Amino acid sequence: MKILVLGGDGYLGWPTALHLSAEGHDVVVVDNFARRKIDSELGTSSLVPIGDLGERVAAWREVSGLSLAAEEVDLTDPEVAHALIRSHRPHAVVHFAEQRSAPYSMIDRQHAVDTQVGNIVGTLNLLYAIAEVDPDVHLVKLGTMGEYGTPDIEIEEGWLDVEHKGRRDRVLFPKRPGSFYHLSKVHDSHNIEFACRIWGLRATDLNQGIVYGQVTDQTGLDSRLATRFDYDAVFGTVLNRFIVQAVLGQPLTVYGAGGQTRGMLDIRDTVRCVQLACEHPAGAGEFRVFNQFTESFSVRELADLVERLFPGEVTVQAVDNPRVEKEEHFYRAAHTGLRDLGLEPHLLGETLVTSMFDLVREHAGRADPSVLLPRVRWRGAG
Amino acid sequence: MKILVLGGDGYLGWPTALHLSAEGHDVVVVDNFARRKIDSELGTSSLVPIGDLGERVAAWREVSGLSLAAEEVDLTDPEVAHALIRSHRPHAVVHFAEQRSAPYSMIDRQHAVDTQVGNIVGTLNLLYAIAEVDPDVHLVKLGTMGEYGTPDIEIEEGWLDVEHKGRRDRVLFPKRPGSFYHLSKVHDSHNIEFACRIWGLRATDLNQGIVYGQVTDQTGLDSRLATRFDYDAVFGTVLNRFIVQAVLGQPLTVYGAGGQTRGMLDIRDTVRCVQLACEHPAGAGEFRVFNQFTESFSVRELADLVERLFPGEVTVQAVDNPRVEKEEHFYRAAHTGLRDLGLEPHLLGETLVTSMFDLVREHAGRADPSVLLPRVRWRGAG
Repeated sequence: MKILVLGGDGYLGWPTALHLSAEGHDVVVVDNFARRKIDSELGTSSLVPIGDLGERVAAWREVSGLSLAAEEVDLTDPEVAHALIRSHRPHAVVHFAEQRSAPYSMIDRQHAVDTQVGNIVGTLNLLYAIAEVDPDVHLVKLGTMGEYGTPDIEIEEGWLDVEHKGRRDRVLFPKRPGSFYHLSKVHDSHNIEFACRIWGLRATDLNQGIVYGQVTDQTGLDSRLATRFDYDAVFGTVLNRFIVQAVLGQPLTVYGAGGQTRGMLDIRDTVRCVQLACEHPAGAGEFRVFNQFTESFSVRELADLVERLFPGEVTVQAVDNPRVEKEEHFYRAAHTGLRDLGLEPHLLGETLVTSMFDLVREHAGRADPSVLLPRVRWRGAG
Repeated sequence: MKILVLGGDGYLGWPTALHLSAEGHDVVVVDNFARRKIDSELGTSSLVPIGDLGERVAAWREVSGLSLAAEEVDLTDPEVAHALIRSHRPHAVVHFAEQRSAPYSMIDRQHAVDTQVGNIVGTLNLLYAIAEVDPDVHLVKLGTMGEYGTPDIEIEEGWLDVEHKGRRDRVLFPKRPGSFYHLSKVHDSHNIEFACRIWGLRATDLNQGIVYGQVTDQTGLDSRLATRFDYDAVFGTVLNRFIVQAVLGQPLTVYGAGGQTRGMLDIRDTVRCVQLACEHPAGAGEFRVFNQFTESFSVRELADLVERLFPGEVTVQAVDNPRVEKEEHFYRAAHTGLRDLGLEPHLLGETLVTSMFDLVREHAGRADPSVLLPRVRWRGAG
């Protein structure tokens, strides 16, 4: 199957591209290197060193004997987006190519606007390109569980069967997200559902939980195949950040009461979920939604886990929550769709956490403790 | 009360500015004249001649003795949006300043992107400006009933009390709109709700139905105070367009089966609703939604009404529906919030329709029949 991986140079895009290649697919990695540019802007860098895309692709060929194509493409240019689909005529397009940090989007007005415009316009250009060139191309779009927010009812997979005043309908699940970034994904989802409805496009919206881990079956084969590992307060996901804090002897920073519960998954499940979605396309005109996570944890539970497993002293520090969010809340979310397609989850356990301690220790000399504490605040507009 | 009317040179913005001025408010009209530029692009113009904003403001002073301030401002410039709020420190900002035509947004990719980016960025800039300068400024935002689409359940005013698997919550009413324009308003609504939640802003989202009519107590005082009257297939609203078709001896063009039912209201109720919203602000942090319409009609019912009342022969012609929408469907929508604040609706009747025949006859020489037929199609991407 020919598959384009947009944002294929990023934290999850790169391992996904390798996994799809290893599974026998014909993969084209597409990126505009926005994530690397943001590193320069923020003064951050991946804890684990990563090569440039050309080096990575060459290493993959050397290690696996498989070739990946790679292209520098900016989806916000409509002609370029159109040419991409026209020249490759892929079976599926996996779309990771968006600004993905909530704190980044909340830095100030400019970052909010840039996040929303970049994400929305890239996706609109892609929808038009697919509709114009070949509506059968399957769009596999990365969304986020954060789109739903934390309602007091069970979260379903994208749609909700509702009964109201004696009548019934299946409606889009109501969204109430917690940042301008998460909102951009909600906007994308609405735009994509409409494109499926009017143009008959096939789309799978993967509402992904928070990913932890850094090693997959492919990225672990060679240090040149490593994917990035972010630990700063802007781009680092919570468990990865806690592990770095433990290894550096810094307190684990829990925001507020730490009762924020979120769906999470192992990076190895991310790449498998995307593969399953690609290999089982949505129907023509179908806007299919999967909740892509395997377990739910509260922030406090993760801190406790790291404290329990770390071979040394760990302190946990409650810091003022920089976000505006419920710190204790009901949380239950359906996630059966990908299991039904064959996902066998890697549940979070001691082995994985211990291996992450080792990984972080190996690169601890590259860590900058000054980027661990949150500086972006939700209250007050910049 | 000091009130900025953004988009105050447009079809509804101008009559709203006059009405608020007549009611004793201190009104500033703000516009970037985008609607007039679109007339040049499309080769259309208002059936009723309208002066430029300077002439209108001068005429209002002459007729009423009241002064209106007027400023040319483009909200997509963040510094300008900020300066606008900072310099005026209004009590309320009435925000009509968006591209408002569904067919225009569906012309092609560029028009879709421009509509979404322009509407979203203008509103984001405004939210930031209010949050930065004074979170107590009440944002009165024009949305549309079209945001909801046509669900099989009763449409509530913005929020839905839902019971699901034995638990209850009040969630944002699910939206499933029918054009990239309508989607832009859904995106705005989500962004505004978030801004209320994190910054404590006060917002009223007026989900307005389809407006008919052209004359208000103020615009009728002098021909120089007239507001625009669009009858083309891109910007003309359905009843206004049918009346022009009847007067010109053209068939009334009903799209498909004509069973599309929509909430509608008289232009005189629009201006009154906005006044009521301004004079009864939302609470701090409240995202308040009103459904701003007074009656529901199907397209076929409107065609029948015009046929029955027109003093002459009228034919009704079913044309291929250029849109993708349900042509027969359930439709019931709550609209009690504005009634509770004091709205006394002008229901659609013979007097209004007859007065519109007279108005159109007076200006029939300016009509261009070639713009009546739909040319923008939803299927196929441009």
